[in-house]
Amino acid sequence: MPTSSVPANLGIDPARLMGRLQSLGQVGALPGGGVCRLALTDADRQGRDRVIGWMKGLGLAVTVDRIGNVIGLRPGTEEGPPVVIGSHIDTVATGGLYDGALGVLAGLEVVNVLNDAAIRTCRPLAVAFFTNEEGARFHPDMLGSAVLSGRLDLAEVLATVGIDGVTLGDELKRIGYAGDAPVGAIAAHCYLELHIEQGPVLDAEGIAIGAVTGVQGICWTEYRFTGQTNHAGTTPMAMRRDAGYAAARLAVEARRVALETGGAQVATVGRFGVTPGLTNVVPGEALLTTDLRNIDGAALVAADARLQAFAAEVAAAEGVALETRALARFDPVAFDPALVGLVEETAHGLGHAVKRMPSGAGHDAQMFAPHCPTAMIFVPSRGGISHNVTEHTEPAHIAAGAELLLRVALEKVGVESA
Amino acid sequence: MPTSSVPANLGIDPARLMGRLQSLGQVGALPGGGVCRLALTDADRQGRDRVIGWMKGLGLAVTVDRIGNVIGLRPGTEEGPPVVIGSHIDTVATGGLYDGALGVLAGLEVVNVLNDAAIRTCRPLAVAFFTNEEGARFHPDMLGSAVLSGRLDLAEVLATVGIDGVTLGDELKRIGYAGDAPVGAIAAHCYLELHIEQGPVLDAEGIAIGAVTGVQGICWTEYRFTGQTNHAGTTPMAMRRDAGYAAARLAVEARRVALETGGAQVATVGRFGVTPGLTNVVPGEALLTTDLRNIDGAALVAADARLQAFAAEVAAAEGVALETRALARFDPVAFDPALVGLVEETAHGLGHAVKRMPSGAGHDAQMFAPHCPTAMIFVPSRGGISHNVTEHTEPAHIAAGAELLLRVALEKVGVESA
Repeated sequence: MPTSSVPANLGIDPARLMGRLQSLGQVGALPGGGVCRLALTDADRQGRDRVIGWMKGLGLAVTVDRIGNVIGLRPGTEEGPPVVIGSHIDTVATGGLYDGALGVLAGLEVVNVLNDAAIRTCRPLAVAFFTNEEGARFHPDMLGSAVLSGRLDLAEVLATVGIDGVTLGDELKRIGYAGDAPVGAIAAHCYLELHIEQGPVLDAEGIAIGAVTGVQGICWTEYRFTGQTNHAGTTPMAMRRDAGYAAARLAVEARRVALETGGAQVATVGRFGVTPGLTNVVPGEALLTTDLRNIDGAALVAADARLQAFAAEVAAAEGVALETRALARFDPVAFDPALVGLVEETAHGLGHAVKRMPSGAGHDAQMFAPHCPTAMIFVPSRGGISHNVTEHTEPAHIAAGAELLLRVALEKVGVESA
Repeated sequence: MPTSSVPANLGIDPARLMGRLQSLGQVGALPGGGVCRLALTDADRQGRDRVIGWMKGLGLAVTVDRIGNVIGLRPGTEEGPPVVIGSHIDTVATGGLYDGALGVLAGLEVVNVLNDAAIRTCRPLAVAFFTNEEGARFHPDMLGSAVLSGRLDLAEVLATVGIDGVTLGDELKRIGYAGDAPVGAIAAHCYLELHIEQGPVLDAEGIAIGAVTGVQGICWTEYRFTGQTNHAGTTPMAMRRDAGYAAARLAVEARRVALETGGAQVATVGRFGVTPGLTNVVPGEALLTTDLRNIDGAALVAADARLQAFAAEVAAAEGVALETRALARFDPVAFDPALVGLVEETAHGLGHAVKRMPSGAGHDAQMFAPHCPTAMIFVPSRGGISHNVTEHTEPAHIAAGAELLLRVALEKVGVESA
């Protein structure tokens, strides 16, 4: 499909995109900055209404499916599945302006550019946003796209009870977003998502664009050590069965295993508690969690196995009992190498430094990856801060990401010869 | 002072001693076993009344001082300060029958033996119990003996507010134990205290008698690490400032320092908490405490300094801030070598295996040590368990300890020639 008919000076309008981001950011705005637009709340309804207003204003044919996912379609000259640009507009309770919204509104900006230039694309182009990506009100996260992908059952999901005790299905109806469109297997030619990194890498390295290679696999394990509560003064070291010591050894080892595994392996001990938690009492019980992530599934499983073996050794040496529990297991998702390569080359063509990187967080894109070629574009998060009202991405980086999204989308939809 | 007039078959009456222990244990008895006789409660008053009843029945001259310490005096043939046998009768909220009570009631048993044999001693003999040794209701512990030793100011201590909001002085008056006797510097020829070990050493080693060489010095330090809360998935290992990791390193090092210091050095990390304490968030803050104890004061200070230096190194390497706070500092107390030697030799003479050992817990005896020759006798605690309703010491060990106390006391009071 020739693209020669695309005007050389075609480009996004950064001010228009920022205007829509600011406008959507006013829906659910928090007094001190930031946004609270939890899924299927009144604020989410207002946000949905506003985005759909823009979609209709741009001539998109809007459909809402039974889980509340919204798709705005711009027809191509050919039949067939659309190139889908998507993300989400729900936020965590103390979120920022860009997490999710950027991907959706940059998609609208792409449509706006095409409309303004009266460009007819070969393939249809769709801009979509998915219900409850954050998982902050209803579990799990990426819920709408997971139903769309067939990963979750619609009826079960509609019965999900949120943190405030209401069911998802009732809230969908209440806000008027229990749509008619069936939620089937995804029919997309390919899927593109622009998102803020939500990590510190691009910002620290001064790189504007991340070409996301996939989403890390996740392995959460809980360890509970049970030893013997003892008097801190009267119990000789050799006679202790110190659950807290065993846990501390494991926490230190988690770092070692992450570094020795190398690559994208990360390991976090986010919970660590001892009982009874008194200065002069040897802890009789300790609980900690490990959160391991890696784009390499085999290495991830090996790292977790290594930590479990270490924990068992330490527990035996200390004379404490050990129980482990698998809290979460998600395989890594690899994005389409050709599409990731296109993102990278196109970014280079625009003069940007590009870093190939995995995503450490989950995204709707991973639900598309098994069904169609999928890729993501990351732009920097200042200080790596996200899920926080101080979340910030430089306007120049937002513009760069949106411009890149436009170029990659144009390449995938194809443009008719003049 | 010749002791030849002591009958060869003189000895304590184990059944009588056990009877008094059981009787006092009924005061404040808990439904499922154990005792709650918090200082200056109604239960403590009843316990005091009962012990004083026994004292008077044994002909002791009872005085109560202004902090509620009770001393029962048996005159000698000579003037001068008495040999004091003491301990306490208050308990923690879930205490056992023997912690404290054993030392007091074994003292009464000694008096009973002397009375029954109509033995006149050269020096006076006193049996004493001191207010609020446990520190469970009013801080600090060893309060009554500390006032007696001049370590604490009487007026300040009387104004101390307990865990239930009442002042110590008011409670003393309420239960009728705000005595008239002045609380001066201690005038004792020497001080002896029989106590359960409250640790596992004697029980584990199958030794009936501990000759206590002193009380360990105590060094409590609080460490607060402040790093950066970060996303567990998106933050590369090299970019983390993980407060929990720094704390875990320190907890592991505490064990190492204790073992490398050797001797009686113990180290406990009893508190360990991380914030925000979520599986998928790198902890931005961590707090832990170290409880170091050693009979060797210089080694204790060195161990604490080593840990503080290690914590500073780890904090710098991890890029986290460190604040340390000294929570408690007590110098070790050495008991009188001659008196400790007398305990050991006398125990050997009675056919017991003896272990010289420091006390890991604090005792009233340490308040006497700066003022007069002081020693303690330990008997085994089953499983090292104390401050617990399952606290237990075998009757044979109780009898052995009391018999030893009798022999050592006889040696110190001296017995008139027939």
